[in-house]
Amino acid sequence: MGSIKNLIIELGNNASIAAKSLRGATTQAKNTALLNIADQINNNRDEILSANQYDLDNGKTKGLDSALIDRLMLDDQRLDGIIESLNQIANLPDPVGEITDLKYRPSGIQIGKMRVPLGVMGIIYESRPNVTIDATALCLKSGNGAILRGGSEAIHSNMALYQCVKQGLIDANLSEHSVQLISTTDREAVNELVQASDYVDAIIPRGGKGLVEAISNNAKVPVIKHLHGVCHTYIDKDADTEKAIKIAFNAKTRRYGVCNAMETLLVHASAASRVLPELIAEYTLKGVELRGCEQTCHFSKQIIAATDEDWDTEYLDAILSIRIVNSMSDAISHIDQHGSGHTESIVTENYTSGRRFITEVDSASVMINASTSFADGFEYGLGAEIGISTDKFHVRGPVGLEGLTSQKYIVLGDGHIRQ
Amino acid sequence: MGSIKNLIIELGNNASIAAKSLRGATTQAKNTALLNIADQINNNRDEILSANQYDLDNGKTKGLDSALIDRLMLDDQRLDGIIESLNQIANLPDPVGEITDLKYRPSGIQIGKMRVPLGVMGIIYESRPNVTIDATALCLKSGNGAILRGGSEAIHSNMALYQCVKQGLIDANLSEHSVQLISTTDREAVNELVQASDYVDAIIPRGGKGLVEAISNNAKVPVIKHLHGVCHTYIDKDADTEKAIKIAFNAKTRRYGVCNAMETLLVHASAASRVLPELIAEYTLKGVELRGCEQTCHFSKQIIAATDEDWDTEYLDAILSIRIVNSMSDAISHIDQHGSGHTESIVTENYTSGRRFITEVDSASVMINASTSFADGFEYGLGAEIGISTDKFHVRGPVGLEGLTSQKYIVLGDGHIRQ
Repeated sequence: MGSIKNLIIELGNNASIAAKSLRGATTQAKNTALLNIADQINNNRDEILSANQYDLDNGKTKGLDSALIDRLMLDDQRLDGIIESLNQIANLPDPVGEITDLKYRPSGIQIGKMRVPLGVMGIIYESRPNVTIDATALCLKSGNGAILRGGSEAIHSNMALYQCVKQGLIDANLSEHSVQLISTTDREAVNELVQASDYVDAIIPRGGKGLVEAISNNAKVPVIKHLHGVCHTYIDKDADTEKAIKIAFNAKTRRYGVCNAMETLLVHASAASRVLPELIAEYTLKGVELRGCEQTCHFSKQIIAATDEDWDTEYLDAILSIRIVNSMSDAISHIDQHGSGHTESIVTENYTSGRRFITEVDSASVMINASTSFADGFEYGLGAEIGISTDKFHVRGPVGLEGLTSQKYIVLGDGHIRQ
Repeated sequence: MGSIKNLIIELGNNASIAAKSLRGATTQAKNTALLNIADQINNNRDEILSANQYDLDNGKTKGLDSALIDRLMLDDQRLDGIIESLNQIANLPDPVGEITDLKYRPSGIQIGKMRVPLGVMGIIYESRPNVTIDATALCLKSGNGAILRGGSEAIHSNMALYQCVKQGLIDANLSEHSVQLISTTDREAVNELVQASDYVDAIIPRGGKGLVEAISNNAKVPVIKHLHGVCHTYIDKDADTEKAIKIAFNAKTRRYGVCNAMETLLVHASAASRVLPELIAEYTLKGVELRGCEQTCHFSKQIIAATDEDWDTEYLDAILSIRIVNSMSDAISHIDQHGSGHTESIVTENYTSGRRFITEVDSASVMINASTSFADGFEYGLGAEIGISTDKFHVRGPVGLEGLTSQKYIVLGDGHIRQ
């Protein structure tokens, strides 16, 4: 255990030094590194794929399920995707150094804000090798040092990819310690990393709710948390019928296993007979299991009675809970009580209802007449996302380059002293 | 201990419910509450001052030193100041609900950010009754619920002030639980509060470095930390002599006991003979004790040799350490190693040096040709400040109303679904 602690201290020290020099790195140097890494990956496909094959073989021996194997697997097409994402991130504007709100004060000083990197990020993720490059690219572009800890099943794939990162950094004359990969699979390394507040400025865990909760409970370093998405669509009494059906269907069925999928549909009692029969028919045809409140169950014998647990459940599956509410206040109360603060949408043509919903619903994304499926960094124009925050502190919703930065004050004077 | 835990859970529950309704409170209702509280204080001066006298008597019996007694003391003039600050905060623009960056995406959705309260703030402070009202006003105006925990020596003063807060809230038809004061002086309440992540969204400790560190080490809730201010002024080789002397003198001597006072002066070797003789004379005349590096000591026999410890010390007193450096890189390295990330200033006429300094120095406030004394919420135009953050996460530097908020995404569509 002592040696793991020492390892993290060593990585932390290296990262702090590298992060200091990254602060002043030019946009060009950072972009060159990203493109170098892309080249390295392109030129070392064989090594990467054979390391990945080794991980896959081990995984199959260990009996990993097919979903995990699929996440672990790399092939030429996925490498193309990784290379493409490096190119895209190189093309994004550099958030660092942006100066805003520069204005004069009565004292004569000019004061503004400058966007700056957070420092050193600790990224903890499951056995998905593509995250090694995603996290590298986003941290590097935003001028942050990074310490990466991927899932143990992907260790050989990650090491092979990390060789490309390291070489790409060196070729761009940036410190190879700008990004470091924890090479041990000992879980103690995660514990030490999240405690290392002398070296690490923020932790981003990418994984299921269990992983994120375990990390948060143990962390001394601030954690940008993405817990889960129990997303709601509320069909208001003044909803347009066609929009309501289209949006509610899309929000549930576009993809089941994603955090922005709707898990609970709330319908105003006076809209229920307009929208539910057709929606129930469409969901059923699509194979979605429906679990409803007592009133909802009256609409179809195929609807199972929902239990209390259903309202708090992120199904990530072809299952939907439906509740009929008597007012928008009831809908908002339901969301307050059962939602996870991820994404909620109202369908309404009523100006006052829409305005009230986006004001009072306290979620990272709040929508009017749009599918919750839009809650995504690319759709929002962030270019890329390192995760989605369900926290309120620092950053909410999809976290792009800006979420990896902070703002310091700059003061410009001309010999000004304070009276 | 169990009952303290239950007390915090009860306060936390009340605060959560109140914070939900504060989210939708109008600017007018919040301002009315602030003005009501001011009236209450004005109308209950006798009760407040007699409660304060009781605290003062207890404090003197306990042998509190004169600085602590001074902070604890209220009189009519200080009550006037408290009332004035309530009026000022009522006059500030409401940060909540501000929508920015609203723009269309290729998908047709319109996306923007809306500024929202963080939720429930826990404010922990020393025996300074005025903070009870300051914290109340800033949390209320920014739409946050607040749980206040003041120093035990001020408990009767705080309870008397809190009666005014409560009545002011009730008279404005806001929940009396919008702001709550912890009425026990048991220290365990602080421990429970900073662990109560189910109810509290952020903690702001206001006090010395020891208090802040103790709280941070124990907290599960995110803490907006103000540790200390080891602030630097760097006189560059291309500094204007007159500006350099004026700024360095002001930064040290304007007030000694404040966090934005300069504690270490860095001087480029080639500027030393231009600026140091006069500065040393002025500091000495003013009674400032000087501790210098070896080269600095050559300038005057009155300069004491600085020890390693000096470079890391926040004197908060009429003491200054001075180091001569051979380059700006050395100055920045010194700041990196010994600074506290609070405020640093460069004095230079050189465009490139100034630009480099504000880019590379990683402090909450970085200045060119201005005294570090300007690092202050009022000077920056924030209207009021609840503290100064030396963290990098969420908010840096003086924390005003905006620092008590976060931004959520809003998405406006017209029946949009994602392909």
